[in-house]
Amino acid sequence: MAKHDPNLSLLFHALADPTRRSILTRLAETPAPVTELAGPTGLRLPTVMRHLSVLEEAGLITTSKDGRIRTCALAPKALEPMRTWIDEQRAIWENRLDRLDAFVMDRMKEGEQ
Amino acid sequence: MAKHDPNLSLLFHALADPTRRSILTRLAETPAPVTELAGPTGLRLPTVMRHLSVLEEAGLITTSKDGRIRTCALAPKALEPMRTWIDEQRAIWENRLDRLDAFVMDRMKEGEQ
Repeated sequence: MAKHDPNLSLLFHALADPTRRSILTRLAETPAPVTELAGPTGLRLPTVMRHLSVLEEAGLITTSKDGRIRTCALAPKALEPMRTWIDEQRAIWENRLDRLDAFVMDRMKEGEQ
Repeated sequence: MAKHDPNLSLLFHALADPTRRSILTRLAETPAPVTELAGPTGLRLPTVMRHLSVLEEAGLITTSKDGRIRTCALAPKALEPMRTWIDEQRAIWENRLDRLDAFVMDRMKEGEQ
């Protein structure tokens, strides 16, 4: 079940940081080298590298090295398990509201008789 | 913008733990007292209380006390900012794929001339 999926914990943890979320939003546009990603964050390169490691471990990005340049790219399907989880929660919740509706309608019908 | 929203960081952090996710799934069914929530986790009550605090701070649950019994309930709209954020990322990504399509089509037309 998704709720026991360790990858889901890694995914949510990776997204719990605003710098990591802004890097992902930038990578949704185009792949980019690490130095370009570091620029707008105002952080030192080793700090940015640590954020990138967390994103890579969660499967949210892939990286490749060409000479001295490391380029990062978004893994576009990586957000899907999280979306599925949210939709599952919503389905349970809506099912509960439907049952509540049915219960209220039954009581109203009983009142009419 | 959603990506700088501190609540979004709290939300993702709260969901990065399997115990907290399983508590939410349970609460999507019906509200429940703390002791009932603690049971299936196999954790001590103070530990469960800390998990519940994290969920409450993130706005995912509300709690109310009646005598000595504290009852927890899901805040059903709380997952919406996260869903919106995921949908925004997907929109940026799909827009990028559309632009790539248009670019390839243009090159193909140029090749035909």
